[in-house]
Amino acid sequence: MHQIGETQRVETQPELVRMEAAEYGLSMTRTARHVNLASRPNGAPVPENFEVVEAEVPAAGDGEIVVENRFMSVDPYMRGRMNDVKSYVPPFQIGQPLEGGAVGEVVESNSPNISVGDHVVHGLGWREVAVLPAAQAQPAANVDGVSLSANLGVLGMPGMTAYAGLLDVASFKEGDAVFVSGAAGAVGSLVGQLAKLKGASLVIGSAGSDEKVAWLTDELGYDTAFNYKSGPVAKQLFAAAPNGIDVYFDNVGGDHLQAALHALNVHGRVALCGAISMYNNTEPAPGPNNLTLAIGKRLNMRGFIVSDHGDMRDDFVREVGGWLADGTIKAEETVMQGIESAGDAFIGLLAGANTGKMVVEF
Amino acid sequence: MHQIGETQRVETQPELVRMEAAEYGLSMTRTARHVNLASRPNGAPVPENFEVVEAEVPAAGDGEIVVENRFMSVDPYMRGRMNDVKSYVPPFQIGQPLEGGAVGEVVESNSPNISVGDHVVHGLGWREVAVLPAAQAQPAANVDGVSLSANLGVLGMPGMTAYAGLLDVASFKEGDAVFVSGAAGAVGSLVGQLAKLKGASLVIGSAGSDEKVAWLTDELGYDTAFNYKSGPVAKQLFAAAPNGIDVYFDNVGGDHLQAALHALNVHGRVALCGAISMYNNTEPAPGPNNLTLAIGKRLNMRGFIVSDHGDMRDDFVREVGGWLADGTIKAEETVMQGIESAGDAFIGLLAGANTGKMVVEF
Repeated sequence: MHQIGETQRVETQPELVRMEAAEYGLSMTRTARHVNLASRPNGAPVPENFEVVEAEVPAAGDGEIVVENRFMSVDPYMRGRMNDVKSYVPPFQIGQPLEGGAVGEVVESNSPNISVGDHVVHGLGWREVAVLPAAQAQPAANVDGVSLSANLGVLGMPGMTAYAGLLDVASFKEGDAVFVSGAAGAVGSLVGQLAKLKGASLVIGSAGSDEKVAWLTDELGYDTAFNYKSGPVAKQLFAAAPNGIDVYFDNVGGDHLQAALHALNVHGRVALCGAISMYNNTEPAPGPNNLTLAIGKRLNMRGFIVSDHGDMRDDFVREVGGWLADGTIKAEETVMQGIESAGDAFIGLLAGANTGKMVVEF
Repeated sequence: MHQIGETQRVETQPELVRMEAAEYGLSMTRTARHVNLASRPNGAPVPENFEVVEAEVPAAGDGEIVVENRFMSVDPYMRGRMNDVKSYVPPFQIGQPLEGGAVGEVVESNSPNISVGDHVVHGLGWREVAVLPAAQAQPAANVDGVSLSANLGVLGMPGMTAYAGLLDVASFKEGDAVFVSGAAGAVGSLVGQLAKLKGASLVIGSAGSDEKVAWLTDELGYDTAFNYKSGPVAKQLFAAAPNGIDVYFDNVGGDHLQAALHALNVHGRVALCGAISMYNNTEPAPGPNNLTLAIGKRLNMRGFIVSDHGDMRDDFVREVGGWLADGTIKAEETVMQGIESAGDAFIGLLAGANTGKMVVEF
């Protein structure tokens, strides 16, 4: 069995190891590390909820591929899967590997559709090496000058979430005033840029630090932004949009949603995308006390998950990929190094430690 | 100036009075009673908030008509107008007449489009005699065997609210399981019947008394119903719909909405029509603590007011009018007598004293 040091070498020099294995006429058994859910978080996750484990990598079966992951994603929705409750995805199991988006290089393929050396995106993150059916992997987008990790962010699930949420779920139209919470996150940072590019009359973002707020207005083109920790959201939102808003893209829930309901104009629309302010709650928190406003204002509030919007994928890749390639759209990442940091990356994500997409690089 | 007794005679024998006026060669000045908002309710309205006042009826100007109201409507939305807050309709003013739906007979007309003797529906209720531009009145529907007051209920605004809310706002489709709160009210009692007629797989109603519950299942064809005062709504709803619901038609808000969010299936729809449980609140009440479920379930929650759905009016009149005429649809009314009872009728409405539409007959 390989030791951790050897495994790390395997990770960084896979071709060399394969050559060695071939030289010695050995069938290649190898080990790699993954992250198990050690225990369910009670409130905010802590390092002890995560356990890095080394295990033998299973052999690839018929139609399967072996992928050396280069980047794995941490996303807010994963917090829900760490609770033992039924949801649109089943809960993670204690003592079993976590899952999530990842992008990596194919090092073995038993599929005619994928070649060794291809880069693919798939759902078996939280591990250095993934073995999966080729049909469950998608070719990674390669955009000149853009990191492969963009497949987990602006060109991946979060980007597509922003695109579908704004244009379809919230029925954005030119001239709308748009408010985005979690605006410095992987989804929010694209929502605001898309809204500007599509002709919004006003784009407002909220984020949790003055640095993020400055990034939104100075780099991403948000018209105005505020630090929700600096004062009541409702008051800051009113100051930013005295004439109200037409669209609210909700990544946060809680007092942000309540403030938005107050600020929304007649026929306003809410895309309910996330509620990160509530994911670590141990008790149900009261909802907005002004939901009744939705009646007189004829608001349309829609929850969504990105996987329902696959029909928009081609448009998304073409449009956002183009804007990313020519620099029109900016995407930032917070990159943590090594699988040992995966738990901390997730903990930090929920605490707002990231600007833009949070990923872990192996 | 007429005394109250004479005015009452005027009300019951208008033709006689007109004859008398003509005999004596007098221009007809007359008085009639109306209801002023004496003070704004603080919480539940009380009789002292309403004041019946006698005043001279103004002469009809060019293009105007004079209507002797036969029935006036009390509706939950009026409670909002009694607060001094901006909404989709301006607030009532203290010392001024209240307004609302009414149906009556035209006794004078300065319009070529409306004749004396016509029955019309208009927005100047809370008064015995209304003077208004002919353009603001609509011809009343006359259905054989159906009271003129149906124009304020099943054939009027509440009926149209049920129709538009279920079929358009909630995007009802055949096979849906539908839950209706306030199911014994003017709107709810039609929603359930429409859902059954349109092919719902299950129609569940909630109401505030065992008598109403029995009426829903025995007379209106609800598959099942429960008394929300008999136990937690969530528990009773789960018992009624163990496989969940697809549509929730919300007349009530509060714990009904929270229970419905829990019970709704993926891609469920909520028509936010009213929140009668909250209209008398003096402080904002917390919203549903499980609104986040809307994300994973991809719920669509839409607030609406009926006046946005005028394009459905012809279909509504044809369909519901037909079903009412042939007895397929049943409509009950709670009728109070005389303008003196108008305040009590409204107070009772908010307390759930009505089964079906609450009206006041003059």
